[in-house]
Amino acid sequence: MDFLSWAWNKRNMAKKLTTATLLVATAEEASNLRYACGFTAPDAVVFLKHGSARHLVVPPLELGRAQQLGGQTRIWTPADLDVSDHERRTLSGWTLGLLRKLKLDAVQVSRTFPLHMARALESEGIRVDVCDTSLFPKRVIKSEQEIDNIREAQRAAVAAMRKAQQCIQQANVDRQGKLIWKNKTLTSERVRFEIDVTLLHRNCIAQETIVAGGRQGADPHERGSGPLYAGQPIVLDIFPQHRGHGYWGDITRTVINGTPHPEVLRMYHAVKKAQREALAMVRPGARADRIHQHVDQVLKEAGFETSVSNGVAQGFFHSTGHGVGLDIHEAPRISSSRQTLKKGHVITIEPGLYYPSLGGIRIEDTVAVTADGFEMLAGMKKAFQLA
Amino acid sequence: MDFLSWAWNKRNMAKKLTTATLLVATAEEASNLRYACGFTAPDAVVFLKHGSARHLVVPPLELGRAQQLGGQTRIWTPADLDVSDHERRTLSGWTLGLLRKLKLDAVQVSRTFPLHMARALESEGIRVDVCDTSLFPKRVIKSEQEIDNIREAQRAAVAAMRKAQQCIQQANVDRQGKLIWKNKTLTSERVRFEIDVTLLHRNCIAQETIVAGGRQGADPHERGSGPLYAGQPIVLDIFPQHRGHGYWGDITRTVINGTPHPEVLRMYHAVKKAQREALAMVRPGARADRIHQHVDQVLKEAGFETSVSNGVAQGFFHSTGHGVGLDIHEAPRISSSRQTLKKGHVITIEPGLYYPSLGGIRIEDTVAVTADGFEMLAGMKKAFQLA
Repeated sequence: MDFLSWAWNKRNMAKKLTTATLLVATAEEASNLRYACGFTAPDAVVFLKHGSARHLVVPPLELGRAQQLGGQTRIWTPADLDVSDHERRTLSGWTLGLLRKLKLDAVQVSRTFPLHMARALESEGIRVDVCDTSLFPKRVIKSEQEIDNIREAQRAAVAAMRKAQQCIQQANVDRQGKLIWKNKTLTSERVRFEIDVTLLHRNCIAQETIVAGGRQGADPHERGSGPLYAGQPIVLDIFPQHRGHGYWGDITRTVINGTPHPEVLRMYHAVKKAQREALAMVRPGARADRIHQHVDQVLKEAGFETSVSNGVAQGFFHSTGHGVGLDIHEAPRISSSRQTLKKGHVITIEPGLYYPSLGGIRIEDTVAVTADGFEMLAGMKKAFQLA
Repeated sequence: MDFLSWAWNKRNMAKKLTTATLLVATAEEASNLRYACGFTAPDAVVFLKHGSARHLVVPPLELGRAQQLGGQTRIWTPADLDVSDHERRTLSGWTLGLLRKLKLDAVQVSRTFPLHMARALESEGIRVDVCDTSLFPKRVIKSEQEIDNIREAQRAAVAAMRKAQQCIQQANVDRQGKLIWKNKTLTSERVRFEIDVTLLHRNCIAQETIVAGGRQGADPHERGSGPLYAGQPIVLDIFPQHRGHGYWGDITRTVINGTPHPEVLRMYHAVKKAQREALAMVRPGARADRIHQHVDQVLKEAGFETSVSNGVAQGFFHSTGHGVGLDIHEAPRISSSRQTLKKGHVITIEPGLYYPSLGGIRIEDTVAVTADGFEMLAGMKKAFQLA
């Protein structure tokens, strides 16, 4: 080792020794906090990781539950921190008190760290470094336990998907083409209710379930409302969070009661092919952007162009997938950004096609990247025409 | 007007003219975005208010739904902003593009504005001022429509509370004192399930419902788990969000199947008295800290001391209430901070007492401050001993 690199290493080791990871866990950072020390709370708390030491400052109200975390994390309340009355009332005061106790003068924080906190720390001479990647880079690689948790949420999603498809399959069709189920018009809201009850039975909850028929399905984020019709594709996108451990699942199917327009059927088969071929590319070392480009190419070769028409995007205009864990959308992204898949990643593969005149088609599964390919986390066959 | 104040006003008017309100609506700011322009989306977007003009930058995926907002808000996608390819991929790039289009060089942002965004804007010469109060100060005063929305969520909460109390009231007691309902042990989880289904029927969802019996109830944020027992107080705290308009309700009752310990009964009556007297103080002009102090005093005079014992807080150690709206916890706080109630505030009043050996008692209603007092938003009688 030459002198320059020795000096460089020494400087960086010194930096490493003094730079602690700080987390002010508001809603935005709840999943990082849960990952870092297992704590969940409705109130904001301060978490600091310094080497192998973990510190958590909680309001007195949270003390009892914080103490159940076990010996890994040292629990503080503001009263332990020798802070002024004013500091005792603010999260930046708690943070300053903790940093003084630990004799630290620099922290690294996430990109979304609250600006006012950063300024309050800086005005007291603390250096605040933004960490441009994940604060907890190991979060992207899931343990066996984490994969089990995601599988559990995914099984609930599959059960709910079966229930939703049952409603649509069993429905009759009235003269206007509306679906009728149990003597009532079958609406997006009704299907969503059946999905939600099925999820609750499995201790899962879904906030933004999509049941979007016909033209509504042409907007990938439209949740859907009102009557469902025969002969129109219905996008069902279910992404529940388990209320115990907090991990998510994510599945999408597109189904139809009745006969699809030939062009809609062609869309369905193109998306199904794109999804199958994208899945076949999933393995350690695969480049996420190449999977995304392949999906793009399969859809284009099937004749489905992507464009903006009258200000409305149509074709395939979202990413191919995303990581799933304690957040529903997390790293890695399967999109045009260059990332390499690794064993232990859990990702969705979800190509789609959207045209205002025809509706939307999307097919999505959640898979874990294994040593030599992928494992489907709770599979479910793909059927389009249900009745 | 003397010259100095004229100059001061001129400077501040100039500032007012150039300082726009910027919102990068991630999860933390979703309710502000909804308030400001009615838009909700799973993805982050950029919102800017400058005088009476409103601007929203959305990804192409959200364009269709954004355009349905109506003429009040000008909708942009990154492609409209003449930004570089690099800027097109980042929220700070979108923001810079919009600010250049509008010839603005300063913004005011919320306290929780993401630090990395602030630094990216500052490095391009934009002044970023943190707004120390609410970005949208009028949010605290609810319109008639907003109060109707909260009432709707609160009615759902009351319906769910009735259902929960029915389960507990109808339960039998086995030899170990466990509650038995429909031939099964009645657990916190089962009661929560019944609550959640009732809420779903009213298009509401609750994430953190508390059903905490016995010692579990002594921790105000413990959600509760496992069998419920006769003779132990059960804290039921239900705070649903309406899935349509996004407003919340909040109600707490404490109930018991069987005969309470005399000390628990005394706790109940002290909390009930504190809540009644606190409610009676609610009117425009009332000081929130005085209401909180009064609750403190009523409970102390009834002989219930607040302290920390073996590191665990006991007695009354949370605030008396909080504002309710598009967030479940928002301004004003009914606590030791000095705030004055105004007509149109919607607040909870929720005193409680917690002792590890006895359990917890909390009673909570949500009320709107009216011209001469308050309006209970969906009332419900207070009964402790159900069977």
